[in-house]
Amino acid sequence: MAMPFPEPIRCKAAVCRAAGEPLLIEEVVVAPPRAHEVRVRIICSSLCYSDVAAWRLRVFPTVFPRIFGHEAIGVVESVGEEVEEVEVGDTVMPVFLADCRDCVDCRSERSNMCSRLPFRAQTSGMPRDGTTRFTDAAGDPVHHFLAVSSFSQYTVVDVANVVKVSSEMPPEKICVLSCGFSTGFGAAWKVANVDPGATVAVFGLGTIGLAVVEGARVQGAGRIIGVDLKPDKFEVGKRLGLTDFINPNDIGDRSINEVIKEMTNGGADYCFECIGLASLMLEAYRSSRLGWGKTIILGVEKNMSPITFDSKEILCGRTIIGSAFGGLKSKTHIPILIDKYLNKELHLDEFVTHEVGLDEINKAFELLIEGKCIRCVIWMDK
Amino acid sequence: MAMPFPEPIRCKAAVCRAAGEPLLIEEVVVAPPRAHEVRVRIICSSLCYSDVAAWRLRVFPTVFPRIFGHEAIGVVESVGEEVEEVEVGDTVMPVFLADCRDCVDCRSERSNMCSRLPFRAQTSGMPRDGTTRFTDAAGDPVHHFLAVSSFSQYTVVDVANVVKVSSEMPPEKICVLSCGFSTGFGAAWKVANVDPGATVAVFGLGTIGLAVVEGARVQGAGRIIGVDLKPDKFEVGKRLGLTDFINPNDIGDRSINEVIKEMTNGGADYCFECIGLASLMLEAYRSSRLGWGKTIILGVEKNMSPITFDSKEILCGRTIIGSAFGGLKSKTHIPILIDKYLNKELHLDEFVTHEVGLDEINKAFELLIEGKCIRCVIWMDK
Repeated sequence: MAMPFPEPIRCKAAVCRAAGEPLLIEEVVVAPPRAHEVRVRIICSSLCYSDVAAWRLRVFPTVFPRIFGHEAIGVVESVGEEVEEVEVGDTVMPVFLADCRDCVDCRSERSNMCSRLPFRAQTSGMPRDGTTRFTDAAGDPVHHFLAVSSFSQYTVVDVANVVKVSSEMPPEKICVLSCGFSTGFGAAWKVANVDPGATVAVFGLGTIGLAVVEGARVQGAGRIIGVDLKPDKFEVGKRLGLTDFINPNDIGDRSINEVIKEMTNGGADYCFECIGLASLMLEAYRSSRLGWGKTIILGVEKNMSPITFDSKEILCGRTIIGSAFGGLKSKTHIPILIDKYLNKELHLDEFVTHEVGLDEINKAFELLIEGKCIRCVIWMDK
Repeated sequence: MAMPFPEPIRCKAAVCRAAGEPLLIEEVVVAPPRAHEVRVRIICSSLCYSDVAAWRLRVFPTVFPRIFGHEAIGVVESVGEEVEEVEVGDTVMPVFLADCRDCVDCRSERSNMCSRLPFRAQTSGMPRDGTTRFTDAAGDPVHHFLAVSSFSQYTVVDVANVVKVSSEMPPEKICVLSCGFSTGFGAAWKVANVDPGATVAVFGLGTIGLAVVEGARVQGAGRIIGVDLKPDKFEVGKRLGLTDFINPNDIGDRSINEVIKEMTNGGADYCFECIGLASLMLEAYRSSRLGWGKTIILGVEKNMSPITFDSKEILCGRTIIGSAFGGLKSKTHIPILIDKYLNKELHLDEFVTHEVGLDEINKAFELLIEGKCIRCVIWMDK
């Protein structure tokens, strides 16, 4: 039996009309889902630093007006043709990285880079046809962000970008699994596969860095060293498994890598860069042990600077690995993380420090920029 | 019973007195081995590109007069105190990378970077005390190179830098195991651990690149693409397992990575840079597959340029690994390679294309620089 054809929906959304300017709560029209797409009522969305970075960006690939937001949870309102995986009423988590489950990459255990719907940071429309599903009050198109655009009460997402989850989970707790937590936790779990007893250094203790700490602890790391300019990060980090803390402001003329090499008798087994600064990526790399040290790059370089390594240093058995979404396949691994949370193996609750309504979304930006929150959840119906 | 204390030995050596100038065959005095050292009569030595690079170098860490050569085979003439692993008359292969078998790195399966006698490219003396064992006719010190200095009829090497081998092997065939062949073969075997059926791209088909081809074939690679400016490299490569060849001069305006991505439907599983050019390292990296592609850096950057990667590109699940000596531990893995050669699993004979006597050593330099040889063996008693 054919489903009734869904109508356009009018709803509230936080629209960005110019780089770095406060988001405006506007009425938008959300078109019905096309083939392979689902329209989702967003329950809540948390603010990730990638939203902030794109909001600030004044050069290509910036495009406005645009609806940011990509870390969220919601309920399927309607589905387009060819959608069989989810149905109306299902609770789903949208994820910026597609998982079509059918291409050579999605079928491989080694990759999470879907080649049917490849990740493109610059895309401002739907993954399959590049068009938008949003229009503003004047009837002009409003652009998408990272294939999710969750700062809207309704959004349209490709079915490859949603994961079905239980409706019984607290949405404000698990929505961090949609991006930040999974990116950090997965990096320690799947990308680095940290060994029991290993020494780990984490550069930057935001959501991703703290999730690396959590992942390293679950993997059985022996020592987890955090590097951050904010001393209070040590307190929250300790609850997740952090054993040592370096504040670069407190080490005088010494470099971070000198301090870590001394603490670890030669360098950490695993170094995670979770900020996105080329200089810190180099510092992480230099802090890794000769012979087997691995540096995992998680941060998106804030200034678009290239990453530069000394050509001699790389020959000493060191490895540099980049990963997106912690190497995780959303549809395979998010359910596993939810089970771990249910089994009380994960400290997700520590990550959500603030909650606001949609009308206060600019406050979430302020909190994150000022480093006053880990994650701020935005309730979309408030 | 104490051994008689060894006397200094007068012998011929090829001494370099200034950067880029022909080596001079001079009489040198080789001091007796000190504790943990062995004095070795070199049977033959092959010329490696690292000798040429250091010979050309006019800036730090250059130092003259100096005796180059580090890929060799010889016989123990005398041993210093504390040496128990080898005795007078043993056939040994000196190796630039120490393997003390006792430090945390030598005991670990993950590392070949001995931390008791760490590799230092700039060292110009013996590993333990930094002094030289060579003096010239005027009584002035002559410096060592890479802890080996095999362009002398006798040299002194730390016991951590020698591997005992059978005296029944043809020395001119197996001496390439002392550096070049092992570096390439080991990179495919131990560093990359190439999977059966995998796609491999090798940038630069000198000794190291050809040994990568050999290693990839033995690992069962499905397709092995060579990149070199010299078309005749394809012929020798095919005998080792090369299946495809790209001459950058023949691809018009297209980049190498575009050609490889097209040939491999998205990029090679493993890319090996075997030349030592930052631009080619980047090209190798870009030729590697998103999601799981690994780039293995084997070349020492010729211009000391840093290696630079785009910060966004690294986030797509790619890995960069540097390795020295193909990740091999000399005392564990060279005997395994010799067994493989005895079992006719390795094409070592293809690697030695020329032989000269010590008096003709400058001809070996010309052949290698002009790309006319793979390896030229220098017989030290001729």
